[in-house]
Amino acid sequence: MLKPSARADIAPFMAMEMARDAARRAAAGQRIIRFDAGLPFVGAPDEALDAVRAALGRDTLGYTDSLGNIALREAISAHYARAYGIDVSPARIAVTTGASGAFTLAFLALFNTGDRVALAAPGYPPYRHILSALGMTPHCIEASDNDRFQLQAHHLREAARTHAIAGALVSSPANPTGTMLLDAELRDLTHAARDIGAAFISDEIYHGLTFERPAVTALTFDPNALIINSFSKYWAMTGWRVGWLIAPEALMGAVERIAQNLTICPPHVSQIAALAALGAGQTCEARKAVYAANRALLMQRLPALGLAPIAPPDGAFYVLADCSAHGEDSHAFCQRALAEAGVALTTGLDFDEARGRRWVRLAYARAHEEVADGVERLARLLGGA
Amino acid sequence: MLKPSARADIAPFMAMEMARDAARRAAAGQRIIRFDAGLPFVGAPDEALDAVRAALGRDTLGYTDSLGNIALREAISAHYARAYGIDVSPARIAVTTGASGAFTLAFLALFNTGDRVALAAPGYPPYRHILSALGMTPHCIEASDNDRFQLQAHHLREAARTHAIAGALVSSPANPTGTMLLDAELRDLTHAARDIGAAFISDEIYHGLTFERPAVTALTFDPNALIINSFSKYWAMTGWRVGWLIAPEALMGAVERIAQNLTICPPHVSQIAALAALGAGQTCEARKAVYAANRALLMQRLPALGLAPIAPPDGAFYVLADCSAHGEDSHAFCQRALAEAGVALTTGLDFDEARGRRWVRLAYARAHEEVADGVERLARLLGGA
Repeated sequence: MLKPSARADIAPFMAMEMARDAARRAAAGQRIIRFDAGLPFVGAPDEALDAVRAALGRDTLGYTDSLGNIALREAISAHYARAYGIDVSPARIAVTTGASGAFTLAFLALFNTGDRVALAAPGYPPYRHILSALGMTPHCIEASDNDRFQLQAHHLREAARTHAIAGALVSSPANPTGTMLLDAELRDLTHAARDIGAAFISDEIYHGLTFERPAVTALTFDPNALIINSFSKYWAMTGWRVGWLIAPEALMGAVERIAQNLTICPPHVSQIAALAALGAGQTCEARKAVYAANRALLMQRLPALGLAPIAPPDGAFYVLADCSAHGEDSHAFCQRALAEAGVALTTGLDFDEARGRRWVRLAYARAHEEVADGVERLARLLGGA
Repeated sequence: MLKPSARADIAPFMAMEMARDAARRAAAGQRIIRFDAGLPFVGAPDEALDAVRAALGRDTLGYTDSLGNIALREAISAHYARAYGIDVSPARIAVTTGASGAFTLAFLALFNTGDRVALAAPGYPPYRHILSALGMTPHCIEASDNDRFQLQAHHLREAARTHAIAGALVSSPANPTGTMLLDAELRDLTHAARDIGAAFISDEIYHGLTFERPAVTALTFDPNALIINSFSKYWAMTGWRVGWLIAPEALMGAVERIAQNLTICPPHVSQIAALAALGAGQTCEARKAVYAANRALLMQRLPALGLAPIAPPDGAFYVLADCSAHGEDSHAFCQRALAEAGVALTTGLDFDEARGRRWVRLAYARAHEEVADGVERLARLLGGA
């Protein structure tokens, strides 16, 4: 009888299971408030859909170059010049099958079996699960509220005292907290990584969705940093599965060989949509204004509901809230919220196996009316003001 | 300075590099005959394009279930009932990001670091390169013309005498030869794999494109076989990156966890196209008739050009031909054919590192006029009849 491999023994991503339960209830006619998944309430910008409509009749949409269509790689390069004032050659940009595809590419290009990669808890669960599945070793470091739950240079230097650290992975704004690294913290992290001989990987998927100050790319401080980004969040193109990886030139041969063999190419139609989305700044900014209003409402109401954010949610579209005042662990709390209030949340256990039972994540990339309705439902459930 | 990982030290997929060179020449205005890549001259069936057009205005196209939309999984299940008379529960079907995504999922779900997987040379190069990149060990077995260059039960039993074989991978019709396993050979292979305790993986991506007799799924002989297929070939949807994996129930938990973490989900829009493509049988059969005419022309003309097929090309849209009569290795031969005749071919070195210097692969999924033109160009180049 076939048995799964040991490497497949990773935890399920509970957010996906909650999403499935919530979708099932919604399909059965129940109105469910979707605070669970990081799923924008809108789709790709109209400009992207128009480009796809035009391509459908014109192009056979066969394989593209493994690193993606050159027009899209050039447009991403131009995005770096415009958004950050930084020059990134298209030759250093690989279009990928979502940020997910960029992680696999980067990890395989950089790390050998058993290599140890430092990252913060709480954090996006696939970081550690992809590493484990690929035979690498996630080295999770408990970040604290002193650090706004972000990995810091001192963590890296401490870890290097006892372990060989092959890589460091940061994310700012972060999932699940929404916190951002300060510029000086990011700079110090890149220096610490360099000093301990670790590759530096920066997940910048929530760039653009920042509410206090713009995010700075790690390339500002380290031209050899690997950058991962995607059209899923700011451009609201989750299901299109298109993102990108920026890597130093010395790695691009390896990146290309792995992409050729493991993926052939990213989805062609999604590359066409992505190219047009890069010109849809107005649409994206209007959507961001909705998220900003949602965030303001949650910041105002959550503390009185016994769901205070554990750290300042500077960006992304998440709040990580402490639910321990409600006398049950967060998994039970989420189940009760879904069953009794029709509000889907995500347990913090996905993001921090140790401390997550006190935390729930609220994703607020929804229409403002839905967020307002969700807050009222939680108020009725929890008896808050 | 960052260095690529040892696992990234895989050979490039030369077919992709030839495709890039050919595309570059075509973009510069030269007419190039594309015998190189396995790239149909047509795109997705109109039914699929219509379904996409309808979805663009209706759906936000967010994430789907990690294993794919249930409607598509049910339709694939129905395809097995219709095409093979075999009952496959949708619960055992994972929609994947092309066959490429199915390989990564299957290999990670089944194999641990260092595990050895038997496969035939010549064969599709990403088989061994994906295994290597994921830390597994491809165990390449030289198949001969006695075996029509297919892996056989006797190969597996021999290999098991000296090595622990964790898996066996077959492909029928095969890339690059187009040869098919006989039903009895496939049956014996599944029995041999069971006897030596190896998982059996059957790449059935060229099913439907068979010219002598229909292909039989490995599920006929082994309900625990893992089946990989895709919408890229028979349905001509290469760039959409959508395929599927069938696995035994005992593996589906592992498959789902890996899919959740490594991919989130396959491209949503491609799943919509794929569902409609399953209803486009007439369109697909009409295209297959073009390939059949191409194949007949090549079979008739190639031997007199000193390019005799090394084995009977029963299916797919490939011929592997012996080019050694032309006095140079196949890489040099391919470069000459592109430069002097504008005909793009693929060197056999991609498929068999040892013997491939005598072989070139011709892919004939092109319009009949293009294939006829290519044959004339080769005739002029090679001075054949």
